[in-house]
Amino acid sequence: MNKETLIQVHDKVKPYIHRTPVLSSELINEITGCKVFFKCENFQKMGAFKMRGAANAILSLSEEQRNCGVVTHSSGNFAQALSLAATKMNVKAYIVMPKNAPQVKKDAVKNYKGEIIECESNLKAREAAAEKIRIEKNATFIHPSNDDQVILGQGTSAKELLEDYPDLEVIFTPVGGGGLLAGTALSANYFSDKCEVIGAEPENVDDAYRSLKSGKIVFNDNSNTIADGLRTFLGDRNFPIILAHVKTIIRVSEDEIINAMKLIWERMKIVVEPSSAVAFAALLKEKNNFKNKNIGIIISGGNVDLNNLPF
Amino acid sequence: MNKETLIQVHDKVKPYIHRTPVLSSELINEITGCKVFFKCENFQKMGAFKMRGAANAILSLSEEQRNCGVVTHSSGNFAQALSLAATKMNVKAYIVMPKNAPQVKKDAVKNYKGEIIECESNLKAREAAAEKIRIEKNATFIHPSNDDQVILGQGTSAKELLEDYPDLEVIFTPVGGGGLLAGTALSANYFSDKCEVIGAEPENVDDAYRSLKSGKIVFNDNSNTIADGLRTFLGDRNFPIILAHVKTIIRVSEDEIINAMKLIWERMKIVVEPSSAVAFAALLKEKNNFKNKNIGIIISGGNVDLNNLPF
Repeated sequence: MNKETLIQVHDKVKPYIHRTPVLSSELINEITGCKVFFKCENFQKMGAFKMRGAANAILSLSEEQRNCGVVTHSSGNFAQALSLAATKMNVKAYIVMPKNAPQVKKDAVKNYKGEIIECESNLKAREAAAEKIRIEKNATFIHPSNDDQVILGQGTSAKELLEDYPDLEVIFTPVGGGGLLAGTALSANYFSDKCEVIGAEPENVDDAYRSLKSGKIVFNDNSNTIADGLRTFLGDRNFPIILAHVKTIIRVSEDEIINAMKLIWERMKIVVEPSSAVAFAALLKEKNNFKNKNIGIIISGGNVDLNNLPF
Repeated sequence: MNKETLIQVHDKVKPYIHRTPVLSSELINEITGCKVFFKCENFQKMGAFKMRGAANAILSLSEEQRNCGVVTHSSGNFAQALSLAATKMNVKAYIVMPKNAPQVKKDAVKNYKGEIIECESNLKAREAAAEKIRIEKNATFIHPSNDDQVILGQGTSAKELLEDYPDLEVIFTPVGGGGLLAGTALSANYFSDKCEVIGAEPENVDDAYRSLKSGKIVFNDNSNTIADGLRTFLGDRNFPIILAHVKTIIRVSEDEIINAMKLIWERMKIVVEPSSAVAFAALLKEKNNFKNKNIGIIISGGNVDLNNLPF
C-alpha cells in the first residue's frame, strides 16, 4: 500500500460511489469552538461509507473470481454495501446473517439483490456458514473491515475530504472493525503533512482503545452499545496501520452518543446513525483540546430504524 | 412586482441567507417515475425558507423604521426567522406568541434574541397584542406571509432552483399562509417559460384548495394536521398572485404526509418537517400524472421536535 495505490483505488471506485458533500454549521462551530467539516457518508449509496470498500474489494478480483461471486458475514451496512456493489458489477453476493437479525436489515439486503444465508447468532456459526459457501460456490470471502482492499476503499472518503479541505488538522472517525480508521489514517498520511487522525469509540465496547494501549488486539466482553456498527473488533490487516498512524482513541458514554446524535439531527438537519455520532461526541467531549482547529468528522452512515429511535 | 424587483431582492438578501443545496435520490426517482430535485430549505439559516422573506422585509425598511424595530405574531418558523434576521441587522424584533406555545419554540426565539410578548391563544388576541406593540414602540408590523416583501423574499428559493435546474417542468410547494406558494409562482413566471407551480395542502386544512376553487379566500374550521406550518390561511396580498399563476392544489391525508416524511428521512437521510413532506406526498399521490417529468420540490424546513415524532 502506498500513496499511488490509494489514488488508483479512488479512480477505480469513482463510478460506483457518490462524492459525498461536506457540510458545516455555524452553531456547531460556536458550540465546539473549532471549525468542523462533516464528510457526509450518510449520503453515500446505500447510506454508508462501506460502499467504498465493498466496491474496491470486488473491483480487485479477477474475472474468474467475479464469476463465482463473493461472500461475507455481516448484519450491518457492509451486508448492504457488498450486495449493492456486487449487483452493480453483475457479481453474485452471498450474505451470511444471523437468523435473529432485524427484518429491516434483511429486507435491505434483499432489496440490493444479495442472497441471504441464515445462521445462528454467534461468530463461530457465521464464520462456518461463510466458509461453507466459500468452498461450495468457490466464492471469494470479503471481510467487512480486515481486508486490504476494503481498507483502501474506505480511505477514499478522507482523501476526498482532504482534497476539499487541505487545511484540516484533525480527522475524527468512529472505530469498530477498524477499516475506516485504518483507511483514513493512510489517507491523512499520504495526502496531508499535518493532519492527525483520531478514533472514537463507545466506552462500553472499547476494545480498540485497549488494543492501541496494549499493542495487541483485545476483544469485548459484551456488545452493549447503541452504536451497533461499532461492536466488532480489529484485525491483523488494519491493526498494524492503526498502530503506526493513530495515537489517540477517545471513548464516549452512551448518553454522550445520543446527545451528539440529537445535536446533529436538530442542527444539521441530517439523519445520522449512532455510530456516526460517536465521532462527533468525542470532539464535543474533548473540545477544549481542539480550540480553533480545523476538524474533519467522517459521518459514517445514516441507516437507522426510525421506529426505534433513542429519543 | 416584476422580474427586475425579484432579481434585486435576491441580490439584497444573499448576504443573509444560504444558497441551499439541491439533492436528489435514484431510489426516489424510481419510486415516482420522474426526476425529482429537492431544494433543501431545511438547510437554510434557522432551518426554514422563512429566513428569506424575513430578511427581505427588514431590508426594505427605512433607517428610521429599523431603529424602532419590527413586530410579528407567529409561533412557528417566521418567529425564529424574524428574530434572527433582525438580530443580524441590529434591529429589535418583538414576537407575539400564544402563552401555550411549546417551550422549544419559545427557546428558539430567545436563542435568536427575539423579545417574546405572550398572549392568549387566539387570532384576535395575537393581533391585538401585535397592534399594541406597533403603537407603543412605533415598530413596523411584518406579516409572516401576507406581505409583498415577504412574498418576494420567499420567491428567491425557486429562483435559485431554476438557476440550477432550468429544465424543471413543475415545482411543488406546500401552502399554508401562501407566501411561499405566491413567491414561487412569481419566480416560475419570471424565470421559466414552461414551469408550472403546484400547491400541496393537508386535506384537513384545505382552505387554499377551496379558496382557489371559489375565487375568494375561505378559512378552516379546525387546525387538525401534523403539518403545523400549514394551519394558517391566505391573505389579500398573496391570493391574487396565486389566483393568477397557480392552477392546481393537491390535497393529501395525514397518513400520506407521515409516509412521505418517513420516506424522505429514510432515503434522503435529511430531517424535514411535516409541512415539507406535504409537497412530496402530493407528488407521490399523483405520480402517474408526472411520468418522466423534471420536478422541483421545495423542502420548506427541518424544524421538528425530535421528542415528538409521528413514527
